[in-house]
Amino acid sequence: MGGHLIRAVVETEGLELTGAVERPDHPQIGFDAGLVAGAGELGVKISDDLAATMANADVLIDFTFPDVTLQNLAVCAELGKMVVSGSTGFTPEQRAEAEKYAAKIPVVLAPNMSVGVNACFKLLKEAAKILGDGFDVEVVELHHNKKKDSPSGTAVRMGEVVADALGRDYNKVANFHREGMCGERSKEEIGMQTVRGGDIVGEHTVYFIGMGERIEISHRAMSRDMFARGAARACLWLNGKGPGIYDMQDVLELK
Amino acid sequence: MGGHLIRAVVETEGLELTGAVERPDHPQIGFDAGLVAGAGELGVKISDDLAATMANADVLIDFTFPDVTLQNLAVCAELGKMVVSGSTGFTPEQRAEAEKYAAKIPVVLAPNMSVGVNACFKLLKEAAKILGDGFDVEVVELHHNKKKDSPSGTAVRMGEVVADALGRDYNKVANFHREGMCGERSKEEIGMQTVRGGDIVGEHTVYFIGMGERIEISHRAMSRDMFARGAARACLWLNGKGPGIYDMQDVLELK
Amino acid sequence: MGGHLIRAVVETEGLELTGAVERPDHPQIGFDAGLVAGAGELGVKISDDLAATMANADVLIDFTFPDVTLQNLAVCAELGKMVVSGSTGFTPEQRAEAEKYAAKIPVVLAPNMSVGVNACFKLLKEAAKILGDGFDVEVVELHHNKKKDSPSGTAVRMGEVVADALGRDYNKVANFHREGMCGERSKEEIGMQTVRGGDIVGEHTVYFIGMGERIEISHRAMSRDMFARGAARACLWLNGKGPGIYDMQDVLELK
Amino acid sequence: MGGHLIRAVVETEGLELTGAVERPDHPQIGFDAGLVAGAGELGVKISDDLAATMANADVLIDFTFPDVTLQNLAVCAELGKMVVSGSTGFTPEQRAEAEKYAAKIPVVLAPNMSVGVNACFKLLKEAAKILGDGFDVEVVELHHNKKKDSPSGTAVRMGEVVADALGRDYNKVANFHREGMCGERSKEEIGMQTVRGGDIVGEHTVYFIGMGERIEISHRAMSRDMFARGAARACLWLNGKGPGIYDMQDVLELK
Repeated sequence: MGGHLIRAVVETEGLELTGAVERPDHPQIGFDAGLVAGAGELGVKISDDLAATMANADVLIDFTFPDVTLQNLAVCAELGKMVVSGSTGFTPEQRAEAEKYAAKIPVVLAPNMSVGVNACFKLLKEAAKILGDGFDVEVVELHHNKKKDSPSGTAVRMGEVVADALGRDYNKVANFHREGMCGERSKEEIGMQTVRGGDIVGEHTVYFIGMGERIEISHRAMSRDMFARGAARACLWLNGKGPGIYDMQDVLELK
Repeated sequence: MGGHLIRAVVETEGLELTGAVERPDHPQIGFDAGLVAGAGELGVKISDDLAATMANADVLIDFTFPDVTLQNLAVCAELGKMVVSGSTGFTPEQRAEAEKYAAKIPVVLAPNMSVGVNACFKLLKEAAKILGDGFDVEVVELHHNKKKDSPSGTAVRMGEVVADALGRDYNKVANFHREGMCGERSKEEIGMQTVRGGDIVGEHTVYFIGMGERIEISHRAMSRDMFARGAARACLWLNGKGPGIYDMQDVLELK
Repeated sequence: MGGHLIRAVVETEGLELTGAVERPDHPQIGFDAGLVAGAGELGVKISDDLAATMANADVLIDFTFPDVTLQNLAVCAELGKMVVSGSTGFTPEQRAEAEKYAAKIPVVLAPNMSVGVNACFKLLKEAAKILGDGFDVEVVELHHNKKKDSPSGTAVRMGEVVADALGRDYNKVANFHREGMCGERSKEEIGMQTVRGGDIVGEHTVYFIGMGERIEISHRAMSRDMFARGAARACLWLNGKGPGIYDMQDVLELK
Repeated sequence: MGGHLIRAVVETEGLELTGAVERPDHPQIGFDAGLVAGAGELGVKISDDLAATMANADVLIDFTFPDVTLQNLAVCAELGKMVVSGSTGFTPEQRAEAEKYAAKIPVVLAPNMSVGVNACFKLLKEAAKILGDGFDVEVVELHHNKKKDSPSGTAVRMGEVVADALGRDYNKVANFHREGMCGERSKEEIGMQTVRGGDIVGEHTVYFIGMGERIEISHRAMSRDMFARGAARACLWLNGKGPGIYDMQDVLELK
C-alpha cells in the first residue's frame, strides 16, 4: 500500500511527498521512498520516526491498523497536523478515542477511500429514487477465492442504500439463495448474488431491470491504487477545514 | 408499437384502456384490441375514429408521425383531452404548431420516452460532477446492423451531458477514431465508439475510468416495450397538470 | 413465434415460404401470412389444413406442443416430408413415438434451437479443457421475474458441460448459495448464481477466473427470433439427410 | 515482474525456486527473493551471476529484453538448461540467433504468455467456424490512457483469427472508424473499437451478433500475474521436451 500512496502523492497536483514512515523493524528503513515505490529517486528516505517526519509535513496519510492509527493521531494532535486514515476495523471504543484527537485536528477516517465506490453509493440512491418500484433491483459482486464472507460489505451497503431509497428494509428483502422451483420473483426482493474466483480485487454491479430495458451501475476495482487516489483527494479537500472527523462522503461533498 | 402500448396500459395501476385507434385502411379495424396485442380479450374494438374514441378517454397516447400527431392534437385540444406523444422528427414549424395546441391542453412530447434513458442522463451528469477530471470518460454504444448513423443520438446526448458537467465542449472533445500510432489519450477527450450487429435494439455504456478503479453506467434496451412503459408513466404524471408542453425530464422530475 | 419463423424463412437464402398453418379456431386463418408477420404481403394464406399445405412443401417447421407435434409427424411421415420441431416437454413415451415416425423421415427435434446456445456448449467444453483446474468456474444467469425455477435449464447444462470436461460431478460441485461467513471458495466448486428481473429473455455468462486474468463467455438472448433462425438453419442442413432424429449439435456439426 | 514470477513459482505444484537474478546494479542484490516479492522469506538470495545461479536449476524464466535474452540463452545453451522467455520485440535477426541456441536446448519464446489470451485465440477460431457468416463480428478493447497504438496487438490478432476462420482478409474487412451518416454495416466488415482510460491493464471482447441473440467472448487482464502463471505452466510443460523453439500454442497444446 505504501508504494501506491507514494505514487498517488507524487502524481497529484497540489501534493508533495515530504516523508515516509515504516515500522522500526521494516527492512527498507533508510531506503529512498521513491525507489522502493517504483516512482524514481525522490530524495526522501524511509524513516521510523513519525514525529520527526511530520515536522516538515501538513498532513499524514495513514493506512495501518486501529492501534497504530490511534498512536499516530496522538502524535499529530500534539503537533497540530491533519490526518487522513484508511485503516479499518475500529471498535466503538477505538472510534471514540479517535474522535477525541479529532477535537483538536481535522481527520478523515474512511474505511473505504475509493472515490468510485463512494460515488456509486450516491448514484444508486439517485437511480432508485428516479426508477422507483417499476424496476427490479439485483446486486452481483465478484471477489477473489480467498474471501470468506458473502456478500461483500460494499455489496451489502449498496443493497442498503437502494432499499432505503425505495422505503424497504434491506434485512427483510435481501435474497441470497435461489435454487430449484423457488417461484416467481417478488416485487420487493433484492437479489444478492456472489461470484468468487482467482484474485479479483472486487467488482459490484447493481441491476435496475424494467420492462424492455435495464440500467446497470458497475464499480470495478483493479488495484489498491484507488484507495491511494482517494487518500490524495482527501488531503487536498482537508486543507483549511476545522477540527473534526470527516468521511469520504464529506470529501466528495455527497451529503 | 400498438401492442406494447396496450399491454403497458393494461398492466399499469391507475390506467384503463378505453379505446384504440388505427388508420382507416388498417386490416385490424374492428378487432378486439386486447386480442391483437396478445393481452387477452378486453372488449375494446380497434376504431378509426379518434374523436369518438376520445369521448370516453382522459388522455391519448400517440405514437405516429408529426403530421398525424398534429391532427390528433387538434382533435384533443378541441375536446380538452390530454396527450402523450412519442412521435419523433418534428421540424421547428411542426413543433411551434404543437405548442399552439398545448396552450389549451397538457401535452407530453418526448422523442425518447424510455424511463431508463432519461434516468441515465441524470445519473451521468451526477457521476461526472462527482468524479471530475481524474476519471477518463468513454462511451460505447451497440445497435443493429441496419443503423445508418454513428454514434446514436442517445450516445451523442450522453457525451454532451458529461461534457457539459465537466465544462468541456462536446464537439471539441469527442473522438470517434483511434487507429494506428495515434498517441496517448488526451485528458479531455471523450471516446465515442460504436458497435454494429444483428438486431440489437440499443445499448449504451459510459465508462468513468480512474486509477485502479472504474464506474460503468449502462443502459440496455431490449424491446420497444420500454417506450410504452414510459408513456404509461407520463399519463399518470400528467393527471392534474395545466396546459403546456412537457418532456420526460419533467415527468421523471429530473429538472 | 409464427411471425419470427415466417421472417426467418423469408430472409434465409435457400428457403422459400410455401405455406403457413394455424389451429382451426385461430382468428387469422385466411389472412396473408406475410402481412400478419410484418414481412409484407407474400401471397401465402394462413391455412388450418396441414396435409394440403405440405403437398407443396419439402419441410415443416413445427413450434407447437408434443401432442400436436406427434400429429404433425404422422401427417409428414405419410407424405414423406421432412420436419424441424422446436416443441419442448416430450415425455419418454412421446419421444419414443416421435422416433417411430423418424424411422421414415428425417426429423430435427431440438428443445433449444438457438445456434448461439449450442455453440456455447461446445466453446465451454473447449475452454474448460484448455484452462483446466487453475481457473475457477462460475456461472451467472439472468431471466425475467416470472421464471419459477433457478437456475435455468441452460445454465445447468452449461455447468454440466464444464464439470464433465474437468472430470467433476456437477451435482456435487454446484454451489447455489453463499451467505454470511461461508469460508474460502473450494477449488472444485462451480458457483451457480441467478438474477431475476423485468422481462429479460435469458442471458448466461460463464466465468473462468485465473490469477490476474479471466475469460468470460456470455450468451444473450434478445428475442425468440434466435429460435426461428436456428430452425431455418436446421431446414437447410436437413436437405439430403436420411431418416432419423437429429438435434442441434448434429445441425451445427459439433459432435 | 520479478515479484510476480517468484510468487507464481512458489505457488505452482511441481516447481521450486532455486535462484533469482537481477542486473548487477540493482539495489536489491543480496536480498532474500521471497521477502522482496512479498512471498515470505525463502532462503534464496537475489544474485547478479546467472551462470552460478543456473548451476542449481533446470529452467530459467526470463522476462528481460531481446539483447539480454540472447545473452541468457547463450549461458543456458552452454549449461544445457531449459529457458522460458516472455521478452518481446525480437528483430528477425535476433529471432534467428535465438533459434540457433534453441538447436541445443528446449526454449519457449512467447511474447504473450497469458494462458487466457492464447485460449481465447483458439475459442474465437472455433466460434467463428460454428457461427459462420450469419453472425456479425465486432471487437472492442480497453487499455490504459498511456497506450499509444490502437487497436492493441492482441485485438488485431483476435480480428485476424476470426477473419481467417471466416475466409476473409482482415486488412480488407477491419473497420476502425464509424462517424456520421456512414450507412448500414456491411456483412463482411469486422469493427475494431478502442477504449482508453486510467490504468486498465487490457481487456478484449469479441462480439458475435446474430438475430435475437449474441455471444460475447471476453478476456480481462487484471495484472501481470497472468504472464507469470503462463511462464510457470510453460516450465512444467517443457520438462522432457527436446531442443527447439516452442510457443504458448504448443504449451497449451492448441495446435
